[in-house]
Amino acid sequence: MPEDLASRPAPLDDLLQRHFEVVDGCLRIGGISAQDLAAEFGSPLFVYDLAILRRQLQALRDVLPAQFHLSFSVKANPNLSILRAFVAEGLGLEIASAGEMFLALAAGCAPGAILFAGPGKTHDELALAVSHGIGEIHVESLAEARRLASVASKADRRVRIALRVNPAAAVEGGGMRMGARAVPFGMDEDQMESVVAAVLEEPALELVGLHLFVGTQILDHEVLLRQYEEGLKIASALSHRIGRPLEMIDLGGGLGVPYFPHEPRLDLAALGQGLAALMEVAQRDPMLAHARFVLEPGRFLIAEAGVYIARVTEIKRSRGKTFVITDGGMHHHLAASGNLGQTIKRNFPLAALGRLDETPGMVADVVGPLCTPLDTLGRSVTLPDVVADDLIGVFQSGAYGLSASPGGFLSRPTPAEVLVDAGVASIVRPAGRPEDYARDAGLTSGADRLA
Amino acid sequence: MPEDLASRPAPLDDLLQRHFEVVDGCLRIGGISAQDLAAEFGSPLFVYDLAILRRQLQALRDVLPAQFHLSFSVKANPNLSILRAFVAEGLGLEIASAGEMFLALAAGCAPGAILFAGPGKTHDELALAVSHGIGEIHVESLAEARRLASVASKADRRVRIALRVNPAAAVEGGGMRMGARAVPFGMDEDQMESVVAAVLEEPALELVGLHLFVGTQILDHEVLLRQYEEGLKIASALSHRIGRPLEMIDLGGGLGVPYFPHEPRLDLAALGQGLAALMEVAQRDPMLAHARFVLEPGRFLIAEAGVYIARVTEIKRSRGKTFVITDGGMHHHLAASGNLGQTIKRNFPLAALGRLDETPGMVADVVGPLCTPLDTLGRSVTLPDVVADDLIGVFQSGAYGLSASPGGFLSRPTPAEVLVDAGVASIVRPAGRPEDYARDAGLTSGADRLA
Repeated sequence: MPEDLASRPAPLDDLLQRHFEVVDGCLRIGGISAQDLAAEFGSPLFVYDLAILRRQLQALRDVLPAQFHLSFSVKANPNLSILRAFVAEGLGLEIASAGEMFLALAAGCAPGAILFAGPGKTHDELALAVSHGIGEIHVESLAEARRLASVASKADRRVRIALRVNPAAAVEGGGMRMGARAVPFGMDEDQMESVVAAVLEEPALELVGLHLFVGTQILDHEVLLRQYEEGLKIASALSHRIGRPLEMIDLGGGLGVPYFPHEPRLDLAALGQGLAALMEVAQRDPMLAHARFVLEPGRFLIAEAGVYIARVTEIKRSRGKTFVITDGGMHHHLAASGNLGQTIKRNFPLAALGRLDETPGMVADVVGPLCTPLDTLGRSVTLPDVVADDLIGVFQSGAYGLSASPGGFLSRPTPAEVLVDAGVASIVRPAGRPEDYARDAGLTSGADRLA
Repeated sequence: MPEDLASRPAPLDDLLQRHFEVVDGCLRIGGISAQDLAAEFGSPLFVYDLAILRRQLQALRDVLPAQFHLSFSVKANPNLSILRAFVAEGLGLEIASAGEMFLALAAGCAPGAILFAGPGKTHDELALAVSHGIGEIHVESLAEARRLASVASKADRRVRIALRVNPAAAVEGGGMRMGARAVPFGMDEDQMESVVAAVLEEPALELVGLHLFVGTQILDHEVLLRQYEEGLKIASALSHRIGRPLEMIDLGGGLGVPYFPHEPRLDLAALGQGLAALMEVAQRDPMLAHARFVLEPGRFLIAEAGVYIARVTEIKRSRGKTFVITDGGMHHHLAASGNLGQTIKRNFPLAALGRLDETPGMVADVVGPLCTPLDTLGRSVTLPDVVADDLIGVFQSGAYGLSASPGGFLSRPTPAEVLVDAGVASIVRPAGRPEDYARDAGLTSGADRLA
């Protein structure tokens, strides 16, 4: 890494050191220069590097006790090629909708390796999951247990379920604190008893496990471990209540990655040590000793593997302020624009991809082409002297990127998604064209009318 | 309107009185009950009532001086049937991307009645606009003027342009204050001179007008009128600078609608009086007397015509709080979830569509099915006692609804869009299906590789 990169914000430095090459000031992703990728596949585009995906996966696996299995949370990145990569690595998939189920199946995931969790599963979704033999359905309320029992009975199937429980103990430290307060996810711990009683009376439901509802984007291993400890207590209580050991204990996702300079990297070694200690406790409880433990990370496994690349259309000055206008924006990357739940809008790690060896020359807002001030990818970013046709890269873009963005806002083309693997880049989802909007708009059935 | 509606927040009351019927406590949209619409077309769905669209349009036309022409801002709602309706009413269309151009043309809009504005127009977009003979391109910077001149010369066309100018005078009162500060939209007023000088030397560019950059969601007619007054001064200066009258003066959009209880309704009568006075001034200036004046509202014309309807999946209690979980959410309606630029998350007007004659019975958060606390359509909403299968309606959903939302987030189906006209409801964009995601994901070209 060139010396002067040391003055850049920590997450960008750290990412460049861990996962990327810089040759003559130009970023290479999986050995291919960003310039070549943009020239070949057009801009804007998302590029995912499978080597980074595998590196993150291995780093996590290296610290997990043998009891642990991983499921990738499809919502983090539902691109079919990403799902296929995780399936090839032996992961299961965690889905939260029927659409994600069809994606998981299309990716070659065995139905038995699919877990379905999420609030407000509808009758139709449950019926699809049951008919496709999804491995486990994680039930989030008494009402849902009853809906599912009715669906399963009608289909003459016995369905493996786990209870998704929102623990009573307060948990701090997540980017969004999710557990231990009123939430629509899972059931409160004190509601578990009534759901268990109802479930045990339903012959169509086979209660095999517990799914712990944790937070999201947690960077403090102690916060995760405290939750897992709670989870073990709840699992023990549940197994004693049903009078047999649990087969499966899903400790949730929640493993975070640092986006901003003040955020630390999750200490995997410490997490692993804590998990090992926890497994010793589990080993001493015959009701838990033989359980399969599941973690279902999404963001942690895929965020760092993705870079969103946009091309500079022009540099604009307005009232003393500089704007770098690019062909990409919030319509492709809502999270980077600060509009996906951020209270304080902080910049994702962002850089001029062809000038990584240059010293800072400007402070600019990096904006997109939409007619709204919301379309801002970076605020007061320190950049080298950027000119039209330069490439801007937004890092940490592999999770909650394209699929979490309002792609049709202002009817601009969908960007290509490109996968880099072993020195080869391929399109895994082609770019759209402006005329697609008029074509898709013509999809009116006409016949369906109600007078 | 039933007596007890009087206790509801003003915007909902006002909307129900102006635009909707309530029969036996049930909402009717254009004469058809919400229940029948959801039963026929499924849920969630967007319903647009052409009668409301026409009512808003007429209300505005009633106060506009004869010099004024209206262009509908496509970005507010790019549904092809909505665009067709505006074209049929004699409006032009204002586009901000090549995708919107194809939609405008597909809607039957004459190319000459299309205006193209927006920051960061790329070379390819400009080339498409020029080759399709778009009526006017509103140039936002010197660099863009040069790009356009190069494109037009190559195509051997002379292109009509206007300059989009961000006035120097501060303007307050918009939902997002846009003008009179550093923005990437348009050119600063003090940059106009250099752009004019360059444009006059380009034989391929024909400078015919001015486009005033105003704010958005402005509810105070005085704020609008002060900007228009500024615009007239800038237009006069511009016409004197080029030595001939302007053909067209585009005073922008920016007309707002009230979403929240504290927001007043725009006083159209006062706006009309102010515009009439302004036109007297313009009449006395020979450089402006024969100009065509353009307003390009989007939200104002279409927001009130749309209702987003979702069905309750279940009612859930967590730690003393009630959640109404619906099958709709932020993936269809990002703005209503408070994640489209709102600093303070306020509820859109929201009601239980089959219980409009019932008294309040619960205070609940109305949430969607996504696994994120962001997926909230209403916070601490006072509702009658709602049960599963009830319909929840989010009003003011005709603008910046579906097209401004992350539809693929968690891979749930696209909702249908339904148009109601003269007592007939028809699908104008069909609902998606969960399996669409796997089908679309298969659209990989495979052949495009880079090693």
